[in-house]
Amino acid sequence: MTRLDQTHNPKLESWVHSANGHLDFPIQNLPLGVVSSNNGSPRISVAIGNQVFDLRKAVAVGLFKGQCSKLEEAVSGETLNSFMALGEGPRQALRVRMSELLARGASEQDRAESCLHDADNCTMHLPAIIGDYTDFYVGIHHATNVGNQFRPDNPLLPNYKHIPIGYHGRASSICPSGAAVRRPKGQLKQPEALEPQFGPSQRLDYELELGVWMGPGNSLGQPIKIAKAAEHVAGYCLLNDWSARDIQAWEYQPLGPFLGKSFATTLSPWLVTPEALAPFRMPQTPRGESDPAVLPYLASATDQREGGLDLKLEVLLLTARMREQQLAPQRLTLSHTCHMYWSVAQMIAHHTSNGCNLRPGDILGTGTISGVDRTSYGSMLEISGGGKNPISLANGEERSFIEDGDEIILRAHGVRNGYVSIGFGECRAKVLPAI
Amino acid sequence: MTRLDQTHNPKLESWVHSANGHLDFPIQNLPLGVVSSNNGSPRISVAIGNQVFDLRKAVAVGLFKGQCSKLEEAVSGETLNSFMALGEGPRQALRVRMSELLARGASEQDRAESCLHDADNCTMHLPAIIGDYTDFYVGIHHATNVGNQFRPDNPLLPNYKHIPIGYHGRASSICPSGAAVRRPKGQLKQPEALEPQFGPSQRLDYELELGVWMGPGNSLGQPIKIAKAAEHVAGYCLLNDWSARDIQAWEYQPLGPFLGKSFATTLSPWLVTPEALAPFRMPQTPRGESDPAVLPYLASATDQREGGLDLKLEVLLLTARMREQQLAPQRLTLSHTCHMYWSVAQMIAHHTSNGCNLRPGDILGTGTISGVDRTSYGSMLEISGGGKNPISLANGEERSFIEDGDEIILRAHGVRNGYVSIGFGECRAKVLPAI
Repeated sequence: MTRLDQTHNPKLESWVHSANGHLDFPIQNLPLGVVSSNNGSPRISVAIGNQVFDLRKAVAVGLFKGQCSKLEEAVSGETLNSFMALGEGPRQALRVRMSELLARGASEQDRAESCLHDADNCTMHLPAIIGDYTDFYVGIHHATNVGNQFRPDNPLLPNYKHIPIGYHGRASSICPSGAAVRRPKGQLKQPEALEPQFGPSQRLDYELELGVWMGPGNSLGQPIKIAKAAEHVAGYCLLNDWSARDIQAWEYQPLGPFLGKSFATTLSPWLVTPEALAPFRMPQTPRGESDPAVLPYLASATDQREGGLDLKLEVLLLTARMREQQLAPQRLTLSHTCHMYWSVAQMIAHHTSNGCNLRPGDILGTGTISGVDRTSYGSMLEISGGGKNPISLANGEERSFIEDGDEIILRAHGVRNGYVSIGFGECRAKVLPAI
Repeated sequence: MTRLDQTHNPKLESWVHSANGHLDFPIQNLPLGVVSSNNGSPRISVAIGNQVFDLRKAVAVGLFKGQCSKLEEAVSGETLNSFMALGEGPRQALRVRMSELLARGASEQDRAESCLHDADNCTMHLPAIIGDYTDFYVGIHHATNVGNQFRPDNPLLPNYKHIPIGYHGRASSICPSGAAVRRPKGQLKQPEALEPQFGPSQRLDYELELGVWMGPGNSLGQPIKIAKAAEHVAGYCLLNDWSARDIQAWEYQPLGPFLGKSFATTLSPWLVTPEALAPFRMPQTPRGESDPAVLPYLASATDQREGGLDLKLEVLLLTARMREQQLAPQRLTLSHTCHMYWSVAQMIAHHTSNGCNLRPGDILGTGTISGVDRTSYGSMLEISGGGKNPISLANGEERSFIEDGDEIILRAHGVRNGYVSIGFGECRAKVLPAI
């Protein structure tokens, strides 16, 4: 067993007691984020139970002596971009070191304790400066469901099973979990109306997505081959691709979604590393027998064997009335990453196949990951059938779309026999009324 | 006459002799760029004739004493982002000061001379770190021509005259003029083929656009009203939105252009300020009598009166054979900014109407600005009717799309009676063969 494998040992426990049995952040996870505590400056930190471990402080007190100096420098910054650029070697070294420092019986526990803060006293920031944000469309059930509503005669377009369809999103309006989302105004046109109007969106929606943070990336003109694509993933998060369906429906032809999406995108703030997710890999979901063959630039036996992710995905809703009633959030959706028709490696190989350069800190969204029935749909558009079939909540409320005061919470967990479960932490945002 | 008005005085000449009568950079222009000379570090500079004036050096030798310290700091950096953030007050102050320093008879000519470099010895960089790139579609003849080819039954979609249609572009692959463009590979599907193939694009094209650099911008959730939109423009450039028509045709539904565009976008490197363009404003081209009324959030009497730009736009082609034959580039297109159906202010007001935040250094493309006939079309797709009607060049060559070794050059000039003409400098790039 290598030292890296050892970091997954299910018997491993931490001297940070809250980590043992923690649903998201046991010592087997060790995600990275950018945190400020008590109004201090942002620090790169590691989540451990209900504590965060300040890496700049750890470097200052000498806990990384003997590690490569580039790593020390990268984790002392205010964003993870430099760390992402370093790639998997330094990232794995950091994981091994963090596992050693936080494990029960660690010889340097005293010094390590001086680097801890209560997560409750911390503000989470976006982990990186995002150069570009690309959103894919790899959830095949979502693509089919939405296609049925926008194009009933032609739900899944002819290119879908040939191309990991994607488009450019807006980087400036990406926010970390916790930041409220303002209901957007925009041009809306009712199907029966002759002219559009301008006003608050009446069909505000969320989308359940996985986010992929890019690592080293490529130079302009130099595609990343599919066999190398995994090396360029720095980590994962949850992504809520907020969508105003009425703005989107009226604006999206011929150039795609724009203001129906660009008012906000919410990310969970912790970077869950490929190493943490190593136990939660699975084969790609097999393509249908009548599906076309994958073109060689998107085909890799390794990717087919282990390019899938074995993650449970959830959406929860907490309405204003539920908060008043002191009710817990209600689950709207239980889905799974097995519903991705294309793998993350295929997204990367396709994205760069024309020479387009990916940079450290770029983010890729998978697109909405819906399952096969209403309990697993990743958006209200699908759950309510375009608003025709509202759902009833346990407290008697109804929802077709998202109302002011509603809070949407995304969660993801890896669960596997023989391994300690890990989670992503929450991706949460509350909707404020339009100005 | 204010000191700012005085900077347009047609009688004003510079002691930099090459500026007087210069087609692009007379003393009435004074565009800003980021330049390195003799392998030095990038410096913010002003173009004057065939010289560039180093602003960091000018600050160091005391030529900006008495100016606001924020301006001194902003022009001493390596990108124009901070300068763009300052807005129009400091930008106008810089213009007045530069005009004074470079005018014939300037008392500080000696010190100013020490800040000059030959443009021939300089490398131009992108003027700013581009957070987000948005591409609009405001050239109505282009939208109609392209619509005719992609959707002959439905060329101009119902939303076109209600919404300044736009979409997000790729920021990472934006390059300054002079950087070569690699022909992209991608999935291509011939209309008659059963399956797509992967290979070099056979239908590589340019698009003639104006680029708009954003100044101060807005906070997330706080739209910019149309009456205030002009204050958020830092300047203008030329933008070549390189397009692989075959990749685009197969991928673009339902989410819009992606890899058909993201392999490269070329910008002219000089920021031509709103002040320099003040003499070249005109009323917006009136909407057709049967066109729908503009919604109030996009309507402004001031914008209607002076929101148009009076700029001649050109595309020139220099093929490999023309270089061998020592021929000059041949003009393919002569167009004009009067063919914009929506103004720059309308683009900004629409973009932020949902609360989306624009940041200093963001860039907006207008979309291809085609005129009404083949001599004024801003792309080969239009000129060759989708490849069906190749054009013959003066040296006997033919073109339907762009071939390896071809160099595309965009130019823009403001020409008005009673004013000295100014230009944007070139937006130029040569196409290299696919890898």
